[in-house]
Amino acid sequence: MKIDGKHFRSLWWNYDDAVLEIIDQRWLPHDLRIQQVKTMQDFADAIYEMRVRGAPLIGATAAYGVALAMANDPSDGNLDDAWTFLEKTRPTAINLRWALDRCRNILKPMDEHDRAAAALQLAHDISDEDVEINRKIGENGLALIRDIAARKPEGEPVRLLTHCNAGWIATVDWGTATSPMYHAHDAGLPIHVWVDETRPRNQGALTSWELGSHGIPHTYITDNAGGHLMQHGQVDMVITGTDRTTRRGDVCNKIGTYLKALAARDNGVPFYVALPSPTIDWTVDDGVAEIPIEERDARETTHIMGKLEDGSIGTVQVTPDGTPGGNPAFDVTPNHLVTGLITERGVCAATPEGLGGLFPEFVQAAE
Amino acid sequence: MKIDGKHFRSLWWNYDDAVLEIIDQRWLPHDLRIQQVKTMQDFADAIYEMRVRGAPLIGATAAYGVALAMANDPSDGNLDDAWTFLEKTRPTAINLRWALDRCRNILKPMDEHDRAAAALQLAHDISDEDVEINRKIGENGLALIRDIAARKPEGEPVRLLTHCNAGWIATVDWGTATSPMYHAHDAGLPIHVWVDETRPRNQGALTSWELGSHGIPHTYITDNAGGHLMQHGQVDMVITGTDRTTRRGDVCNKIGTYLKALAARDNGVPFYVALPSPTIDWTVDDGVAEIPIEERDARETTHIMGKLEDGSIGTVQVTPDGTPGGNPAFDVTPNHLVTGLITERGVCAATPEGLGGLFPEFVQAAE
Repeated sequence: MKIDGKHFRSLWWNYDDAVLEIIDQRWLPHDLRIQQVKTMQDFADAIYEMRVRGAPLIGATAAYGVALAMANDPSDGNLDDAWTFLEKTRPTAINLRWALDRCRNILKPMDEHDRAAAALQLAHDISDEDVEINRKIGENGLALIRDIAARKPEGEPVRLLTHCNAGWIATVDWGTATSPMYHAHDAGLPIHVWVDETRPRNQGALTSWELGSHGIPHTYITDNAGGHLMQHGQVDMVITGTDRTTRRGDVCNKIGTYLKALAARDNGVPFYVALPSPTIDWTVDDGVAEIPIEERDARETTHIMGKLEDGSIGTVQVTPDGTPGGNPAFDVTPNHLVTGLITERGVCAATPEGLGGLFPEFVQAAE
Repeated sequence: MKIDGKHFRSLWWNYDDAVLEIIDQRWLPHDLRIQQVKTMQDFADAIYEMRVRGAPLIGATAAYGVALAMANDPSDGNLDDAWTFLEKTRPTAINLRWALDRCRNILKPMDEHDRAAAALQLAHDISDEDVEINRKIGENGLALIRDIAARKPEGEPVRLLTHCNAGWIATVDWGTATSPMYHAHDAGLPIHVWVDETRPRNQGALTSWELGSHGIPHTYITDNAGGHLMQHGQVDMVITGTDRTTRRGDVCNKIGTYLKALAARDNGVPFYVALPSPTIDWTVDDGVAEIPIEERDARETTHIMGKLEDGSIGTVQVTPDGTPGGNPAFDVTPNHLVTGLITERGVCAATPEGLGGLFPEFVQAAE
């Protein structure tokens, strides 16, 4: 999408230097810094340190990581090593494993000397496919927003709430949860977005930056506020993204999503999850029981980064010295709290039948 | 309770200087600053800027404000003016109005020249009563914790979760939600407390400071984390405070409390609210419909204060420049989500009958 009128993707291939370039998102929303990702360690850092973040973008980045590995050493051993090295950077992100598996499965049967060029083309393809998937998610979500708008007085905005940043910078373009918002806004449908802050890493600031850059009305709120807003009829629809979706439609997304789903159910607010099909893990059924939740550095909870009064970027410690912190990064929203799943193939119920109906070939492959 | 081994209250009368002293809580947990509250504007600032915070402490502070007003000018007009001036500083805090009403009702019938001394004694009494009320809340809550401990393996800690700071620094001493914790710990019952950060003002850092100073094991978590912890059996009981409780037991507390109550119900975790009876508003029944929710400065959501790397106190801006913020400060948890109310007279159901059984004289007075 656009920044100051110029169209960007979240990553792109620099053909002059033959290198991947990314937006180093750690400095957003305050500073737009571009980084060249040159070494395998650069790739691991980019994913682990969340310079790139969001399930689809992590997958595309990892594909370029495999391409670099193949350019360095196209042997079978190095292909396996690259898979292992990149996979461990973010255990929860299903797209990461999906992209790595896809690369390995395609490259393994090839002659070694063909692998470097093929791996790079594959990374390009994965990126382009992601853009197209998200565009379709936007079209499908737009239909839901239109339905709500049709039941409201003419011109009154549809009020959406979102958690975390499932925006274009969490994908290659469009975003997942934000794609219906961009589509609605561009279609002239008035919307207003409640943006959850999303502690501990405040990805809501990224969503605010995205929406503001695109001209979409929004309000930044604490994660605590959504329940109150729903109680008072201020939310027409929730749309979030997901890092991993189970076969039956349980949704593993940024910590706190589950609480919003509970509030939505308690207040009769539709709760939708936007997802590209690569985030579906067809091997997992019960998300609460089966998905391991990444426990991240406690410092993320006790220290907060932002812009200081002098304009520089700094960190404040909120808690007393030595306070022990706990930092589970994701939670699982059981499928019965999810009104529907917005995919590139359409909207379906969060059930085995719903997902199976849209993606029969994956169900068969998993059986 | 104790700071570095020395016992403090949250406010106290300095007899040498004939002035109220408070802990200016804006600098906690990083710095313990004592302030003398000398003028009516000082009192308004102390309450509005949350130098003192927490319903019971606000009430006690306001009583000292009335005492100052009576020392300055004990006329009927000034008594009414002081009531109005102090009442508007925090519209949600029922204790504030309760304390102001009590002062006015007692002082109004008196000779003007008796009012200054009587008002000061009344403020002392309100403070001492608060300490005694909270001590009893602790005893009553302790019985609930003992029941849970009795059902667990010997020596395994009872895991409590709390939201905001309903601690001793939110009262004159002991705290409300924390009083059962201090009582349990002092009785040798092992506990562990999950401390919600409580955005936007991070009162969880205050709770961590309190609990750490007293030696109670605890972990600081984001507001988003509690649902996940409950899903995985990591929480035995939730105890929060309340700023205002309705006649039927709806609980108006710090924004986000409602979300924790929803998660507790969804996971079968008992959800208790500790409250001194002055926080009960016998004139209100339906909290969601009837209680006006204070909307505070949006800057509280977009900017966060803490300790910088050089040890000084500073503020970081988390969002892009100009991001609009929304900041409802409280929400209402409907009574059907509340397992029980812990009061100074015992534990009761969050129902009209429950509260009426413990406080029959208030029900009659309100009818």
